[in-house]
Amino acid sequence: MAISKERLYTIIFEADTAEGKCFDVALIIVILLSIIFVILESIDPVRAGFQIGLKIAEWVVTTLFTVEYLLRIWVLRRPWKYVKSFFGIIDLLAILPSYLGLIFINGQSLLVIRALRLLRVFRIMKLTRYSTASLTLMRAIKASFEKILVFLFCVLTIVIIFGTMMYLIEGEKNGFTNIPTSIYWAILTMTTVGYGDISPGTPLGQFLASVIMILGYGIIAVPTGIVTAQMIQKSVPGNTQVYPNCMFDKHDDDAHYCKKCGVKLD
Amino acid sequence: MAISKERLYTIIFEADTAEGKCFDVALIIVILLSIIFVILESIDPVRAGFQIGLKIAEWVVTTLFTVEYLLRIWVLRRPWKYVKSFFGIIDLLAILPSYLGLIFINGQSLLVIRALRLLRVFRIMKLTRYSTASLTLMRAIKASFEKILVFLFCVLTIVIIFGTMMYLIEGEKNGFTNIPTSIYWAILTMTTVGYGDISPGTPLGQFLASVIMILGYGIIAVPTGIVTAQMIQKSVPGNTQVYPNCMFDKHDDDAHYCKKCGVKLD
Amino acid sequence: MAISKERLYTIIFEADTAEGKCFDVALIIVILLSIIFVILESIDPVRAGFQIGLKIAEWVVTTLFTVEYLLRIWVLRRPWKYVKSFFGIIDLLAILPSYLGLIFINGQSLLVIRALRLLRVFRIMKLTRYSTASLTLMRAIKASFEKILVFLFCVLTIVIIFGTMMYLIEGEKNGFTNIPTSIYWAILTMTTVGYGDISPGTPLGQFLASVIMILGYGIIAVPTGIVTAQMIQKSVPGNTQVYPNCMFDKHDDDAHYCKKCGVKLD
Amino acid sequence: MAISKERLYTIIFEADTAEGKCFDVALIIVILLSIIFVILESIDPVRAGFQIGLKIAEWVVTTLFTVEYLLRIWVLRRPWKYVKSFFGIIDLLAILPSYLGLIFINGQSLLVIRALRLLRVFRIMKLTRYSTASLTLMRAIKASFEKILVFLFCVLTIVIIFGTMMYLIEGEKNGFTNIPTSIYWAILTMTTVGYGDISPGTPLGQFLASVIMILGYGIIAVPTGIVTAQMIQKSVPGNTQVYPNCMFDKHDDDAHYCKKCGVKLD
Repeated sequence: MAISKERLYTIIFEADTAEGKCFDVALIIVILLSIIFVILESIDPVRAGFQIGLKIAEWVVTTLFTVEYLLRIWVLRRPWKYVKSFFGIIDLLAILPSYLGLIFINGQSLLVIRALRLLRVFRIMKLTRYSTASLTLMRAIKASFEKILVFLFCVLTIVIIFGTMMYLIEGEKNGFTNIPTSIYWAILTMTTVGYGDISPGTPLGQFLASVIMILGYGIIAVPTGIVTAQMIQKSVPGNTQVYPNCMFDKHDDDAHYCKKCGVKLD
Repeated sequence: MAISKERLYTIIFEADTAEGKCFDVALIIVILLSIIFVILESIDPVRAGFQIGLKIAEWVVTTLFTVEYLLRIWVLRRPWKYVKSFFGIIDLLAILPSYLGLIFINGQSLLVIRALRLLRVFRIMKLTRYSTASLTLMRAIKASFEKILVFLFCVLTIVIIFGTMMYLIEGEKNGFTNIPTSIYWAILTMTTVGYGDISPGTPLGQFLASVIMILGYGIIAVPTGIVTAQMIQKSVPGNTQVYPNCMFDKHDDDAHYCKKCGVKLD
Repeated sequence: MAISKERLYTIIFEADTAEGKCFDVALIIVILLSIIFVILESIDPVRAGFQIGLKIAEWVVTTLFTVEYLLRIWVLRRPWKYVKSFFGIIDLLAILPSYLGLIFINGQSLLVIRALRLLRVFRIMKLTRYSTASLTLMRAIKASFEKILVFLFCVLTIVIIFGTMMYLIEGEKNGFTNIPTSIYWAILTMTTVGYGDISPGTPLGQFLASVIMILGYGIIAVPTGIVTAQMIQKSVPGNTQVYPNCMFDKHDDDAHYCKKCGVKLD
Repeated sequence: MAISKERLYTIIFEADTAEGKCFDVALIIVILLSIIFVILESIDPVRAGFQIGLKIAEWVVTTLFTVEYLLRIWVLRRPWKYVKSFFGIIDLLAILPSYLGLIFINGQSLLVIRALRLLRVFRIMKLTRYSTASLTLMRAIKASFEKILVFLFCVLTIVIIFGTMMYLIEGEKNGFTNIPTSIYWAILTMTTVGYGDISPGTPLGQFLASVIMILGYGIIAVPTGIVTAQMIQKSVPGNTQVYPNCMFDKHDDDAHYCKKCGVKLD
């Protein structure tokens, strides 16, 4: 049973070895189970019927997470850096609520504390963040961030202008009680969600609503275009990573492309 | 009338001959008709008014499908492999419900059995799966599968976090009775469906709802970008047909790409 | 006032001359006005208040359209071919309802006849169909037609399967009275329209609804990807039309691109 | 404290210097604050509770804007050109409502005047319009403007035709009281907003609704494709930055493009 600290490090923090992969998969399963337990617990009849079972399940998960958290700290050379990091805090938040639940017996504060356990979902994110797919996605979104910001600002402007116009046209009798509510309606309509809890009653209001709907329907093309263009561009230099420098350096004088890897020569 | 087993095989299993195509088209028509009959049967006044007509139609279709199924088994050299395959089971499920309907006279189980006949729709899928269009589509979706999975996981995370927040903010009085219901609401809102059966009542809830709406409105760009980028990349080899060989045919023995135009050499 | 038949032909049927363009613009304005009149007429208080005005407006428009229709027939060498063409029938349908309205004095049939006048909107389509933008759009859609068909068939399959499942799970008490209604609900949900007139009440139904929502939210990427990929591919050969053969044929032996127009040389 | 007119000009009208940037950021913050104040003021309990605070805030903002407006006029050589420009009018509209509010004491006209202050949101637009991201976006949208117009016209045609059909099929008893309302419903449905305030009741109406939903769900691909294709084409010159000059500098005098790499020569 004597596992060296170094081996434990590779198991817990790396995913390259078979043991490390097993550990990650087991962790994901435990996290998912614990999330499902928290969600089920919020349903009144389930909580009433399986009170003891859920209690046991919670403490099994909490014990596992606590052991894992302590191991992580024990294994690291500079544990404080991990504890203060984003995922260190998430890991702590994954176990803290259960212990805090012993202090705060009942009431709204307990409800919030118990809900905090759902932050465990971010633990899975941590495990997937190194996959190529997430990296590609994140890079594409990061690269088009400024454009998306400009787009969002335009959406906000349209939504404020239309919301205010509807507030003036429709007024309180049709549910547009104040400008924030009208802006809320405009967002509901422009994003094509459309609950229908607030809807225009006057012909002019319905006309304006039609305009904002068609606007919302049409300008969804803009973020889509931004991200798609970014992804296609990203995937072009990305190919040079797949076929990078082939280390072939005896190019003929008249060659415009490397005859080994097909990369265009400068 | 004596059709050889080989000819029957080409008619039933292949679509290259004129007869094979006729058979496929006839099969699609019968399947579509039978689906329409099942759908119509579920409407109370139609079932009451055309009881005998629908009964006859069902048994004509069932007989045709039974004969076809038996022919398929008779024609094949290794029928068992077909019977155990996905489409073999679908073909069996297309005829079984009618016979089972003779045993289970009424009640909910009959309703389920009768509904099973709708699985016949997959039979059409079988007939279209070899078309170029479906192949291109399937390849594009398969190639971006991992990215779509990461995207779906992000959506699930957002939906769990927002759902729980709304459960804590809005509470039972506004319809957010438990976390699963809140997550259901979050999915409804983020996918821009928005039934309006549950909608936030507090200003903070409406603000959070606005955030999730704009998020949902914006990140639809991500799967779209993924699939589009994949489709364009898939279609790039198509461009080599437009600008094919550069007519340079003095390739060095060690060349993998044409040094003039960069096209990959076979 | 004596305008030759030939000149009238170029004015009415062509848009290259200044007069032809004027005629087209005037026609579009009259059509739009006539459509607005028909729409306004359907509003009860407007019909009551402006009965005589609308009557006059209708007959002015009808007279203009009749004169134009007769001129078109008179001007053409083979008028019968025009009369039998799609746009010939549309042109006739633009004037017929007003005359038929004299025969059928009132009732539902009159309502339908009057609504037929709205088909005039297709007359505008005729005038815009030769624009480059519509041609590009139509070509892109036509080229991806087969793929869109496969996509639509997949959507129909999903909608039938999910509709039937919801019919079995939710049943009549939650509004899923029969399979067509359930399929209608599934379409409402998958296309993210979501009226909320029918919505699932059971937890299993809500789970299935969530699945179809996320499906619908995700697979919108597929037609978007198809059309976008098609448009980008279409626009690639399109560029060769913008910079076509520059008629420069003294290319150096070592040139890979035309030094005049930059087109890649074979 | 003596700041020269020239220095003031660079601070107010340019964003290249540190002071200019500070001024712009400060301006954005004041504008955003003033917008939040206007929005909050429309909420009855907030207006009642913080009447004096909001009054002071409004006059502080108004004074700042007035000073800034007068400085702009004083600093410019041709102030009249600025005053008559779009953003000059917006700047004036940002301060005018507060002064007009002194004349019109109460009633609906005051409500409209106060709402006019929200036009200040366009002032932010002015400050962001020179960012690369907005320029790229605007150019892409401008370039695909004609295609988007054709697309919108098609949407309008579909919406008129389907709206009228639903008016004839469903009639007043299901809420389709007149053609404009039916068209409003068709827009609601096609853009996938779907309030559910009007929804079809007859089977034929539900079938038509399904058709328009799937149409709306599918043809969203068209504007997306247009904008995306445009963005990718716009971004192609960007690739020349990645693979810039081919280092070939013996261009013939008559060359318009580099004969080695096809890049356009200046």
